[in-house]
Amino acid sequence: MGKVLALDLGGTKIYSALVDNKGKIIREDIRPTMSDGGFSLVADRILDSLHKVVPEGEQPGGIGVAVPAYIDPKTDRIIFSPNLKWRNVDLKKKLEDALGLPVWLENDANLAALGEHRYGAGQDFNDMVYITVSTGVGGGLILGGRIYGGAFGGAGEFGHMIVDAHGPECSCENMGCLEGLASGCAIKRDAQQLVKSGKGRRMLSLAGSVEGIDARVVGKAAVDGDSEARAVLANAGRYLGIAIANVANLLNPGVFIIGGGVACGVGKLILDPACHEAYKRTYPPYRAFLKITLAALMSQSGILGAAAYAWDQLEKGTSSGI
Amino acid sequence: MGKVLALDLGGTKIYSALVDNKGKIIREDIRPTMSDGGFSLVADRILDSLHKVVPEGEQPGGIGVAVPAYIDPKTDRIIFSPNLKWRNVDLKKKLEDALGLPVWLENDANLAALGEHRYGAGQDFNDMVYITVSTGVGGGLILGGRIYGGAFGGAGEFGHMIVDAHGPECSCENMGCLEGLASGCAIKRDAQQLVKSGKGRRMLSLAGSVEGIDARVVGKAAVDGDSEARAVLANAGRYLGIAIANVANLLNPGVFIIGGGVACGVGKLILDPACHEAYKRTYPPYRAFLKITLAALMSQSGILGAAAYAWDQLEKGTSSGI
Repeated sequence: MGKVLALDLGGTKIYSALVDNKGKIIREDIRPTMSDGGFSLVADRILDSLHKVVPEGEQPGGIGVAVPAYIDPKTDRIIFSPNLKWRNVDLKKKLEDALGLPVWLENDANLAALGEHRYGAGQDFNDMVYITVSTGVGGGLILGGRIYGGAFGGAGEFGHMIVDAHGPECSCENMGCLEGLASGCAIKRDAQQLVKSGKGRRMLSLAGSVEGIDARVVGKAAVDGDSEARAVLANAGRYLGIAIANVANLLNPGVFIIGGGVACGVGKLILDPACHEAYKRTYPPYRAFLKITLAALMSQSGILGAAAYAWDQLEKGTSSGI
Repeated sequence: MGKVLALDLGGTKIYSALVDNKGKIIREDIRPTMSDGGFSLVADRILDSLHKVVPEGEQPGGIGVAVPAYIDPKTDRIIFSPNLKWRNVDLKKKLEDALGLPVWLENDANLAALGEHRYGAGQDFNDMVYITVSTGVGGGLILGGRIYGGAFGGAGEFGHMIVDAHGPECSCENMGCLEGLASGCAIKRDAQQLVKSGKGRRMLSLAGSVEGIDARVVGKAAVDGDSEARAVLANAGRYLGIAIANVANLLNPGVFIIGGGVACGVGKLILDPACHEAYKRTYPPYRAFLKITLAALMSQSGILGAAAYAWDQLEKGTSSGI
């Protein structure tokens, strides 16, 4: 049945893999993105990485690519990617020209959702919502068994759901977005504020300085049992729970799957308060439907979603334009 | 091509119509629901009303029914309807047994969405979101050209989206739901509070007493140019705008259509502040996609949606069980 190539392109690392049709990773390569070098240099690093995982004589069927970006569904151009600092670039053409293989791009959170749907915690659900909690907050929707992009391809943008109209300012200039309340950045800010107010000594001693405190430090202190660190995570979890309730009311999905580095790192310390709050905040008649679980594939949701996407496109016989 | 029957069942009135396949209402009957009489009495009134619109010798193809209720998509039973004070009743069987025609039930907001999609403001959009602002706030989703009910049939519950985590208490026991901030009830509460504080004299003189002030009075004063009434509507509109922004980020629909008695009654006095706030609160890269418009069918969205639904079911050849 052959193999496909999968690429999970992040702001910090390039993850390439050769994957079979069961979702098994045969070979992989991980290297830093070095996005400061600009588009051409990153594209060259991607090509080096992809070459590394294709054995001599092997001809993969195509390449699925997960990109932290808004991609125009009509032109397949990457319209903007804050993490990669790209605007309006044509990665698809660049890779197809260099490799002579069909390339299919999709938003990384959508592909992480697809990965969980095909190979992870969402296998039994045709309608599922994937939420990633890492430095930021993002998400992807699988509705009726397929990625749902909406009319413009950008659906699933959870991070900027406003759950507290008068809440703190977010990076997008708005106030009270989920990302400003439940992301790794928000956890870092809340913990640093706590320490500046004279509390959170365990976190401070772990980090060495106020500035050294980030979501990872908070997570480590919390896992070690520090109640102040746990309270910071619980606060983030509660806001996540409100957003989950809103989407439960709006979409009635079969399951919510929570992934991303921060959520997977601390697990139930963020999931339990999120579940508790989501249950309380969901429209009462819908509470019985609520199902929330951690991602099963952890850091591989994206790469396996990219592989699944490539397999889907091959099966559909989608023309890639080459 | 024949005709279908359509029924829009509300907490206050029963609206029956005979409709052709172009969405033209041939005959109609409107009468009070009198839901206090209980299920059997309301069902009898429905049957009287339906008989009234079917001419002698005419055999409609089936009946589409819009119900203000959560309907179990597996059993077609009405699980609960606060407006009708029903729990776990089988209206479908009752009507089919009495009429010998196939009956298809759907949630009223979903059918209003379908009505606008087929015959109204949503005709050019495969992905659209319908929001109704009347006594309460509700909604329906058309995704990929079809009603989207989610895994459990209850999708589109906008009224209980939390947009202000610390906002006022809602009828569902939660805090900061859209329904508690932007519904007819919320407008009434805000206007009464204003008058109790010694302001809003124009509204008070229109209503005669504080207790007499409701969304209709606020709307009338606002249309007449009263700035205090306009401010109450604008406040509701701004919260509606936040919810619209959240759904724009989540679903990227082609259009938002705002219907319901309160919104249609005051039009731009609620729509303009909603649009302004929605634009400001939408994730900046998605602002260009935002399109918000008033419903075109006004009070007929639901009945025409019920007719469209019956036509769709007939076309699909859906077995109704009779």
